[in-house]
Amino acid sequence: MAHITLPENLPGIRGPMAFRPETAAPLNQLAEILLRGESTLTRGERELIGTYVSSLNDCFFCQNAHGGLAQHYLQCDMAFIDQVKHDPASTPISDKLKALLAIAASVQRGGKFVTAAQVDEARRCEATDREIHDAVLIAASFCMFNRYVDGLGTWAPQDPQFYVERAARRAEEGYANYDPHK
Amino acid sequence: MAHITLPENLPGIRGPMAFRPETAAPLNQLAEILLRGESTLTRGERELIGTYVSSLNDCFFCQNAHGGLAQHYLQCDMAFIDQVKHDPASTPISDKLKALLAIAASVQRGGKFVTAAQVDEARRCEATDREIHDAVLIAASFCMFNRYVDGLGTWAPQDPQFYVERAARRAEEGYANYDPHK
Repeated sequence: MAHITLPENLPGIRGPMAFRPETAAPLNQLAEILLRGESTLTRGERELIGTYVSSLNDCFFCQNAHGGLAQHYLQCDMAFIDQVKHDPASTPISDKLKALLAIAASVQRGGKFVTAAQVDEARRCEATDREIHDAVLIAASFCMFNRYVDGLGTWAPQDPQFYVERAARRAEEGYANYDPHK
Repeated sequence: MAHITLPENLPGIRGPMAFRPETAAPLNQLAEILLRGESTLTRGERELIGTYVSSLNDCFFCQNAHGGLAQHYLQCDMAFIDQVKHDPASTPISDKLKALLAIAASVQRGGKFVTAAQVDEARRCEATDREIHDAVLIAASFCMFNRYVDGLGTWAPQDPQFYVERAARRAEEGYANYDPHK
């Protein structure tokens, strides 16, 4: 049971967002710009960074909701997403994305864990300043979203397939006009 | 030196916000609503939660910038702010604020560390669901802001007095119309 009384039947972040729509608006605006807005990183790559950080934070709802979106955009299966979560270096993704995921993992531990060597490696793989900036802010924002979801003790459907089945609709809907009641 | 090339001479979060104004807008909107918007928690109490979490995350810029704002609103000295950062239970603040700071400390470690007993204690001190929600989201959002500031390796003035002297102007200016170049 959630720590506070939230609108019923809304899983994960949807309950708190329906409870407090004033803060939901900028939270969704931030997600829209970072995860779907104009970028040289694909939407799949960006959702993968969010999924990976959510997995490191052990947030069941976020890693499945965003993992579902990542597999939708990347046209892969969930086994691939699971492999990225557990050992990104071993997966067939670009060296640039591996370098950005390494930076994201440091951000998850704390901002000061990001090293100059990690940033140099990202640059060697031709990551731009804007891509490094966005990887850091995506990782930092998921450290917020994950804590928001779990810090209020929200519930989440336990079947990973639930999230896979909803991914196409979620991708179409986006974040900017997100309606937590839907 | 920052990990990416940021506009010069802008300390802490101001550099990244000037670098990427698209994401700065919802970040500042979120801060405005959470820290200054309508609430039964005072602005001083809310800045104190952000200061405390920033201290736990060892983020020098945020704990001083928001500590300066907290002492401005609470009309106290920085020794009081330091005491809250190091041992909130020993300070002359309300039992409700102590209970919310304990929840914030758990959120800083990770959402799942918030316990039903902590929430019960906050309720015993007459915290409302909205106050508990906002304490969780303030703490979670500072886990983002702190990682954003330190994950990009930004610089910050080292003299705590710098922040105290700017606090009145910052309080007047607010977050919604925040201009990182000023």
